[in-house]
Amino acid sequence: MNLAIMKVDATMREVSAVIARVEDWGFTAHLSQNDAHTIIGIVGEGQGDWEQIRQLPGVERVVPVKHPFKLASREFQPEDTVFPIGNHTVGGKGLLVMAGPCSVEDRHQIIETAIACKEAGAHVLRGGAFKPRSSPYAFQGLGEEGLKYLAEAREITGLPIVTEVMEPALVPLVCEYADILQIGARNMQNYALLHAVGKAQHPVLLKRGMSSLMEEWLMCAEYILSHGNKRVMLCERGIRTFEKYTRNTFDINAIPVVKQLSHLPIIADPSHATGKSEYVAAAAKASVAAGADGLIIEVHMNPDKALSDGAQSLRPEAFAKLVREMRMIAEACGREIE
Amino acid sequence: MNLAIMKVDATMREVSAVIARVEDWGFTAHLSQNDAHTIIGIVGEGQGDWEQIRQLPGVERVVPVKHPFKLASREFQPEDTVFPIGNHTVGGKGLLVMAGPCSVEDRHQIIETAIACKEAGAHVLRGGAFKPRSSPYAFQGLGEEGLKYLAEAREITGLPIVTEVMEPALVPLVCEYADILQIGARNMQNYALLHAVGKAQHPVLLKRGMSSLMEEWLMCAEYILSHGNKRVMLCERGIRTFEKYTRNTFDINAIPVVKQLSHLPIIADPSHATGKSEYVAAAAKASVAAGADGLIIEVHMNPDKALSDGAQSLRPEAFAKLVREMRMIAEACGREIE
Amino acid sequence: MNLAIMKVDATMREVSAVIARVEDWGFTAHLSQNDAHTIIGIVGEGQGDWEQIRQLPGVERVVPVKHPFKLASREFQPEDTVFPIGNHTVGGKGLLVMAGPCSVEDRHQIIETAIACKEAGAHVLRGGAFKPRSSPYAFQGLGEEGLKYLAEAREITGLPIVTEVMEPALVPLVCEYADILQIGARNMQNYALLHAVGKAQHPVLLKRGMSSLMEEWLMCAEYILSHGNKRVMLCERGIRTFEKYTRNTFDINAIPVVKQLSHLPIIADPSHATGKSEYVAAAAKASVAAGADGLIIEVHMNPDKALSDGAQSLRPEAFAKLVREMRMIAEACGREIE
Amino acid sequence: MNLAIMKVDATMREVSAVIARVEDWGFTAHLSQNDAHTIIGIVGEGQGDWEQIRQLPGVERVVPVKHPFKLASREFQPEDTVFPIGNHTVGGKGLLVMAGPCSVEDRHQIIETAIACKEAGAHVLRGGAFKPRSSPYAFQGLGEEGLKYLAEAREITGLPIVTEVMEPALVPLVCEYADILQIGARNMQNYALLHAVGKAQHPVLLKRGMSSLMEEWLMCAEYILSHGNKRVMLCERGIRTFEKYTRNTFDINAIPVVKQLSHLPIIADPSHATGKSEYVAAAAKASVAAGADGLIIEVHMNPDKALSDGAQSLRPEAFAKLVREMRMIAEACGREIE
Repeated sequence: MNLAIMKVDATMREVSAVIARVEDWGFTAHLSQNDAHTIIGIVGEGQGDWEQIRQLPGVERVVPVKHPFKLASREFQPEDTVFPIGNHTVGGKGLLVMAGPCSVEDRHQIIETAIACKEAGAHVLRGGAFKPRSSPYAFQGLGEEGLKYLAEAREITGLPIVTEVMEPALVPLVCEYADILQIGARNMQNYALLHAVGKAQHPVLLKRGMSSLMEEWLMCAEYILSHGNKRVMLCERGIRTFEKYTRNTFDINAIPVVKQLSHLPIIADPSHATGKSEYVAAAAKASVAAGADGLIIEVHMNPDKALSDGAQSLRPEAFAKLVREMRMIAEACGREIE
Repeated sequence: MNLAIMKVDATMREVSAVIARVEDWGFTAHLSQNDAHTIIGIVGEGQGDWEQIRQLPGVERVVPVKHPFKLASREFQPEDTVFPIGNHTVGGKGLLVMAGPCSVEDRHQIIETAIACKEAGAHVLRGGAFKPRSSPYAFQGLGEEGLKYLAEAREITGLPIVTEVMEPALVPLVCEYADILQIGARNMQNYALLHAVGKAQHPVLLKRGMSSLMEEWLMCAEYILSHGNKRVMLCERGIRTFEKYTRNTFDINAIPVVKQLSHLPIIADPSHATGKSEYVAAAAKASVAAGADGLIIEVHMNPDKALSDGAQSLRPEAFAKLVREMRMIAEACGREIE
Repeated sequence: MNLAIMKVDATMREVSAVIARVEDWGFTAHLSQNDAHTIIGIVGEGQGDWEQIRQLPGVERVVPVKHPFKLASREFQPEDTVFPIGNHTVGGKGLLVMAGPCSVEDRHQIIETAIACKEAGAHVLRGGAFKPRSSPYAFQGLGEEGLKYLAEAREITGLPIVTEVMEPALVPLVCEYADILQIGARNMQNYALLHAVGKAQHPVLLKRGMSSLMEEWLMCAEYILSHGNKRVMLCERGIRTFEKYTRNTFDINAIPVVKQLSHLPIIADPSHATGKSEYVAAAAKASVAAGADGLIIEVHMNPDKALSDGAQSLRPEAFAKLVREMRMIAEACGREIE
Repeated sequence: MNLAIMKVDATMREVSAVIARVEDWGFTAHLSQNDAHTIIGIVGEGQGDWEQIRQLPGVERVVPVKHPFKLASREFQPEDTVFPIGNHTVGGKGLLVMAGPCSVEDRHQIIETAIACKEAGAHVLRGGAFKPRSSPYAFQGLGEEGLKYLAEAREITGLPIVTEVMEPALVPLVCEYADILQIGARNMQNYALLHAVGKAQHPVLLKRGMSSLMEEWLMCAEYILSHGNKRVMLCERGIRTFEKYTRNTFDINAIPVVKQLSHLPIIADPSHATGKSEYVAAAAKASVAAGADGLIIEVHMNPDKALSDGAQSLRPEAFAKLVREMRMIAEACGREIE
C-alpha cells in the first residue's frame, strides 16, 4: 500500500482527483483526516505510475507503508483513535472498565451483577449470550433470551453492553441489543464474521487468537477497518504457551507494541490471561502501568456456582477494590479512571 | 457420557426402549452398530438413574466414556471408521492420496494439474476456490467460478474433489460441486460452520487448528458427529511452535495418538506441516510409516508462479516419485497405496 | 516431604530430638524459624512412621508439602524472605533496582556507566564478564579482567555487583569479585553449577530458563536452597513462544504466581523480556504494578555501539526517567524505591 | 566465516601458506579434505584482505558461509560425516540402533538388559549413570559405580556404551568407561561442557534442547567441532510445545532439515519425543522413513518398576519387534539395519 499525503491546503477537489485516478488503476482509496493533513490510503491489487500521483495538484508526497496492515497502522493515522462508548470514551486519557459475568445465566443474575459492577466503577457491562464451548454437550448460552436480559440490565444501570457474536447470520440480531460486538479468540480469523462486523455500525472488540502473532491480529483489525468500520478495540487475552500453571500466558508486551504499531485502542483481559482469580488483580494493575486503554474483567456474584469460568471470576468486592487500586496506578501514569 | 452396550441378541424393540427411556430423561441417544454389538451413546445434560437402564431387557452393561469426546472415541466405536471416497476407501488397508494446487487459479491450470496428479497416482483432487487469506488485499480465490473448474477437472479425470468451505452460508453451494468439505485450520473452532457441515451429506476433512490440543480437535470432530455426519477425517497439518526454520512443526505424534483415541481416519498434510517443498517428501514418508490413513499434498505445475503456497508445492514429477516411495513404505508396513 | 511444625514453646532439645529421629530414618532435616514457630522440613528418600514424630514432645503437627519444591515453598516458610544487598534490602517494602551494561567492554565504559546508573537511582551494578554466546566465534567477555573493572566500579560508586557465573570451576573466582552470583537462563538446569552456588556464601539471582515451567524454575531454587544457600532471588526474563515481534514473551503472570507459591523475592528483567528498548519502560512499570521485588535493566552509554544486546539497552537518561516513573507506581502500590 | 576452496592439484605447501596468512590476520583455520578438494574454513575475529587469499597459488576460490554455523555446515563439508562406532558405522547406509534403560539401576539389571538389547538387534547400549533430575531429592544415578556396571555389560555383550556426562570436571572419568559421550537436552548450551567434550577423543551425542531452535542446536555442535572433535551426532528428542497429550512434540521436520544444512549424522530419540511407550514404535518407524541415521530407544525388562522413565520404555520383546519393522522400512528407503 501507498499513502498519498495531501498538502495542508489541499482542496476537496484535489483529493477527489487523486482518488479517481487510483480507482481507475484498480486500487481502493481510504480517507484519513486530521488537523494537519488529509491522507489517502491506497490499497489493493491495481497497477499504476506513482510518479503521476506525486505530480497531481495538492499532493505533498507518496509514501509506502511498511507493515502488511495499512489502515490499522500508525503511519496511516498517527493520532490515537478515540471514540465514545456510552458516557465515556476509549482511546483517550481515561481508561474504559468493562466488567460482568462470563455468561448470562438468568435475568436476576445479570441485573444483580450489573448493579454491583456499576457501583464498583465499571463503565460497560459484559456478558455472554452466545457462548463458544469446546464441547457440544456444554451450556451454549441463553441466546436471544440472554440478549434481552442484558438489554434490561442496561436499562436499569445505564451501562452499555459488550457481548460476543459468533456467526455472520447473527450479527443483525446481536446489533439490535448490544452496544459493542465482541469477536472471540477462536473466531479472530473467521473472515466472513470480520466482514459482517466490518459492515455493522457498532464498535468491535477484537480478541487476539490464542496463538496469533500480533501481526495476524492487526491484519484481522485491517479486515474490519477495510470494510468500513473504524471503531475497533484490540483485546489481549493471553496466548497459549507451554506453561501450565496459568490458563494462558498474558503477553503484556503486546500493549506497548500495539500502541506503537497502531492507532487503535488496546484493552487487557486479565481474567482470561491468567485463568485464576487470585492473579487477576496483579495482571490488571500491570496492564494499567503498561499503558492499556481499558480492561475487561469477569465478575460473578458467586464464582463457585458460575456456569462457566468461575475459577477466574472476581466477586464484586474484590473488583471494587481492584478498581480503586487501578485508579491510583492510572493517576501515577498520567491517565485516569472515571 | 455413558454407553449402553446391548447384548449380542438384543432386539430392535429392546434398543428402542433404551433410547426412549434416556430421551425421556433429557439425553440424546446415538447408535453405533458392529458385528458383535449395538452400542447406544447417551450424551447431553439429562438426569436419570443408570441402574434402571442396566436392568432393561437386552442391556449387557452401562459404561462411562472417560474422554470429553464421546462419539469420536474408540470406546464408543472400537472398529476403525471406513468409508468410500470415489472408487477408493479411507480408513482401511489402502491409503488415500489427495493432491493438487493450493488455489484454483484458472480453468487450464486446474485441469492440467488434475491430469498430472491422476497420472502420478492421486485418488482425490484438492484445490481452493474460497481462500482464507491473512490480508484483505490478497487473492481470495475464484469463488464459484473455481468450483466449476474443479467440477470440470473431475469430469475429465474422474477424481473426486476436496475443497475448503469457510462459512455456513456457503455450505450448500460448495456441496453442489465438491465431494469432500474441508474445514481449514483457522476455522476448526468455528462452531456454526461445524454445525452446518455436520448437517451436510458430504464427508468432511477437519484440519487441526494451528495451536489446538489434540483433545480440542477431537471435540470439534465431536461437534460434526453429534450433528449427524459420521464421515469425518482428521487432518494433521503442523502446529505453531517457536521453531522458525520450518513454517510449522509437524506433530507426527498426533498420528498414533489419534489412532489410539479415535476410530476416525487420520490424514497427514506434509505440505503445510513443513512449508518448504524440499522437506515434503521426508514428512510424507514419515506419515506413512507412522500409520496415517492418507495424505494431502500440494502439487503445482510451476511452483515459482503459484498465486499462493508456491514454496511448499511439489512439481508433478517430484510428486510421482514420492508416491512410488510411499507405496514401498506402505507395503513394508502392511498397508497399500493403490 | 513433610513439615514438622513445633509448638511455640518448643525447646531446642525437643527440636534436636525430632531432627535426630528423622535423620536416623534416612531423611535430611532443614530448619526454618520465625517469631511464631520453628518448622523442620524433612526431605529425601528415608522411611519412617510419622505418627511417632507427631507424638514427640514439642511437636504441634506434621503436614505434607503438596508441591515438589519444599524449602522454596510458602508452606515451609510463610514469611517473605528478606535479605540485605549492600545498603538496601530485597524482599521487603523497597524495590531493588539493578542496572548496567550487558557486557563489561572496557574499564572506562563500566566505570562511566556505573556512575550514570547510580545517579539515575540504581542500587546494584550489573555487567557480564563471562558471557554465554550462541556462537563460539563471538565476543565471550573479558573474563577476570572484566571482574576487576567491575570491582573498581564498585569502589568508586559503592554499588554492589551482580555478574554471571557459567561453570562450577569458576564460582570461587567470581565470588572473589562479585556480590551477587547470576545463573543465566541457559544454565538454569545446570545442576553442578546450582550445587556450587548452593555452597557459596553469596546471594544468587536465578534466571528462569527460556522454556521452563515455573515449577521447574522453583525446583532449581530448591537445589540451591537444599545445598545451604538461603539467599536466592528468582528472575523472570521472558519465555520463548511463537511470537516474533518481541525477543521473548514477558510472562508477567509469573510475578503473582511466584509470590503465592514461594517466599523468595522475584525480580523482573524487562530488557530480555522484550528485547527492544522502546518496550522496556512499559514492561518495567508493569512489573512494579504486578508486585515484583526488584528489576534488572540493561543500560548502556551508547547502545548503538554495544558489543552485545544494544537493541534492548536504555541510555542513562531514559533509565533515570524510568526510575522516576517506577517510583510513582511503587508508591501507588504501597511499595517504595529508595 | 569464509571458506578457501583449494584447487584439485593444490600442494600441501600451498595449503600451508593460506593457513599461515589467515592465522597471521588473527583467524583460526580448519581443514576439511575430500576426494576432490581441500577446503580451509577460516573463522574468528581477524581482519584481512580476502583478495590476497584469492590470489595465492593453489586457491580456486574464496566463498562466504551463509549460516552462523560453519564447520557444521554442508558448505564446509558437502559429504556426510561417517565414522565407526564399535563394529558399525554411523552416517552411512546403515542405521545405528542404540538401546537400553534410562538409568543403570544395578549390576544385574544392566547386564540382563544389555543381553536382551543385543539379541533384539541393538548396536550400542545406553544407560545413565549420572542423571539430571528435576528434584534434588530424586534418584541421581549410581555415578561411577554405574559406569563400572556399564563397562561390565560391554565386556559381556561387546556393545559400545553411550552415557551422559553432566559437568566438565567429570569428562575424564566418563571417558574412561564410555564409548560415546551424551550431552543431555538441559545441558545443550552448557558451553563449558561443550568445550570439555570438544577436547575429548570420544564421539559425542548432542541432544537438542527442549526449546532450542535448530540453528542454536547446530551452533552447539559448532562449539564442539571448533574445539577439535569432529565426531558429533545430533539427537532430536522432541521439543516443548503447548500439547499435553504427549510428553514432548517430536519435531520430525528436524531430520530432513539437519540433513540438508549439515553433514553430521542425525539420531532420533522416539522415547523422549513421545514419552509414552505405546507411541514409540510409530515415532521410531517415522524417523527411519524421514531419513534418520540412527535411533536411541529406552528398553527396560520391567517398565513398571523402572526408577525413571518407565512410562516410555519398551520391553525387550516389543523392541525386538520394532527393530524388525524398522529394518523393513529402512530397506524400502534404500537404507539398512544390520
